[in-house]
Amino acid sequence: MDNYFSQRHTVRAFTEQDVPDTLIREILAQAAQAPNTGNMQLYSVIVTRNVTQKNALAPAHFSQPAFTGAPVILTFCADLNRFIKWCKANNADAGFDNLQSLVAAAIDTTILAQQFVTIAEKDYGLGTCYLGTTTYNPDVISRILELPALVVPVVTLSIGYPAAVGTASDRLTPEAYLHLEKYKDYTAADIEKYYGYKEDLPENKHFIQENNKENLAQVFAEIRYPRTNNELFSEKLSAFIAAQLGR
Amino acid sequence: MDNYFSQRHTVRAFTEQDVPDTLIREILAQAAQAPNTGNMQLYSVIVTRNVTQKNALAPAHFSQPAFTGAPVILTFCADLNRFIKWCKANNADAGFDNLQSLVAAAIDTTILAQQFVTIAEKDYGLGTCYLGTTTYNPDVISRILELPALVVPVVTLSIGYPAAVGTASDRLTPEAYLHLEKYKDYTAADIEKYYGYKEDLPENKHFIQENNKENLAQVFAEIRYPRTNNELFSEKLSAFIAAQLGR
Repeated sequence: MDNYFSQRHTVRAFTEQDVPDTLIREILAQAAQAPNTGNMQLYSVIVTRNVTQKNALAPAHFSQPAFTGAPVILTFCADLNRFIKWCKANNADAGFDNLQSLVAAAIDTTILAQQFVTIAEKDYGLGTCYLGTTTYNPDVISRILELPALVVPVVTLSIGYPAAVGTASDRLTPEAYLHLEKYKDYTAADIEKYYGYKEDLPENKHFIQENNKENLAQVFAEIRYPRTNNELFSEKLSAFIAAQLGR
Repeated sequence: MDNYFSQRHTVRAFTEQDVPDTLIREILAQAAQAPNTGNMQLYSVIVTRNVTQKNALAPAHFSQPAFTGAPVILTFCADLNRFIKWCKANNADAGFDNLQSLVAAAIDTTILAQQFVTIAEKDYGLGTCYLGTTTYNPDVISRILELPALVVPVVTLSIGYPAAVGTASDRLTPEAYLHLEKYKDYTAADIEKYYGYKEDLPENKHFIQENNKENLAQVFAEIRYPRTNNELFSEKLSAFIAAQLGR
C-alpha cells in the first residue's frame, strides 16, 4: 500500500512532453475493466491533440489554461449510438433512447474516466484535470467533435506530464457526509462544525479578499457558480439532452 | 505497478465477515481526495447494515443476491442540501437547485464511489458490486433513507469480503470506443468487427440459450433492459428529480 490515494491532487500545468495514442490505449484497456452496467460499455472517448481542433474546442471550456496548456484533451461521452447499432444489426428492439439509459451510460462514462485518472496518475506519472465545463456547452462540443445523435459529452480530461510538484487540497472529514442508516439532516451547528475550518485556510482567505466578498460561501455562490449561470446552463443542457435522445 | 487494474472484477457473493464503520470512514477519507467540482463535495453516503433497514431497501434493488448477501450497503447520493445550507448560513445566494448543479454533484458522487471501489478492493481486499437499480427506484430509496429535498441517490454499492476467487470479464478493445479528433460513426462492418467475438464466449452462448433468444443483443434489448421498463423508469426518475429540485 502506498500513499497515492491520500495524496492525490489535480494537475493544471503540463510540460510539453506528448502523451502518445498508444499510451492512451494502454491505459484505457486497463481502465475499461472498471465496472459498467451489464457490460454494455455505453461510452466513447474522443482524443483532441490537433491544434485546429483544440482551438475550436477551447472557448467551450472558457479557454482555461488547464485546457490550452495540455498536450492532449480527452472528451468522455455517454454513447447509446454504438450499442443501438449493434442491437439493430442483430434484429433486436433497442429501447435505449431514453433518460434511464443515458443516466446509466453517463455513470459508466464517469467511472471509466475516473479509473483512467487513477491509472494514468498512479502507474504512469501523468497529471490530469477534469473540466467541469463539459456539461455547460455540450452543443458546441458536440458540433466540433461531430458527435451523432444518442451521444452526449459527460466529462473532459486534460492530460499531460506535470510541470511542477503539487499537493493535496483540503477535504471535509468523512463524518460530514457519512450517515448511518438514515440521512441525518444538518443543524446550523453541524454546518459550522464541518465547514468552519475552511474559512481559515490561507488559500481561501486570499480567495475571499481577491473577490471582495465577506466569506467563502459568497465566493462560491455569487462569483464562481452564480444562479443565473447555473439556470442558463441547465436550460441548455436540458434542451441538448432532449435533442440527442430525439425527444 | 501490479496487475490489479487489468484483472479487476466485480464480487457478488460475500463471506459473513463484517466491514466496520471505522474501515468505511478510513477508505472514504482517502477516496474523497479524488477530484470534485470546485471542492464543493456535493455528496453524502448512507450506510445500511441494520436488518430492518436492509429488508425495507431490498425490493427497490429487486432483492438481488448481490444486495441481500452483502454485510454492508452504501448508497452514494448527490447532495445539494448541505452545501446550500452552508451558503444560506453565510448570507450567500445559493443558486444550486437546478439540473446543472445536480449533474455536477452526480458526477462527483460517481467519482467518489469509483475511488472507494478501487481503494477498498486494491488496498483492503474487499469486494464490491454496483447496483444499477438505484436510479430505477430513487423515490422508494429516498423514503427509506429519509433523504430530504435536494438529495438524489445515484449509485449503490454492496461491499464485503469475497466468498470466492473471481476473474475479469471481457471488454471491447479500446479501438472500439476511441476516436481520434472526431467521432467516427460505426459501419455495419465496424459493429461486427468490434462485437463479433462476444457471440462466441461460452458465458454468452449459455445466456442466449437460457433466454431462448437468437443472439446476445436480443438478450440485452428484450430480456435484460426492455424498452417498456426503460421508458417507465425514465418517467419515474424524471419526476423524482423534478420533485427533489422543487420544480
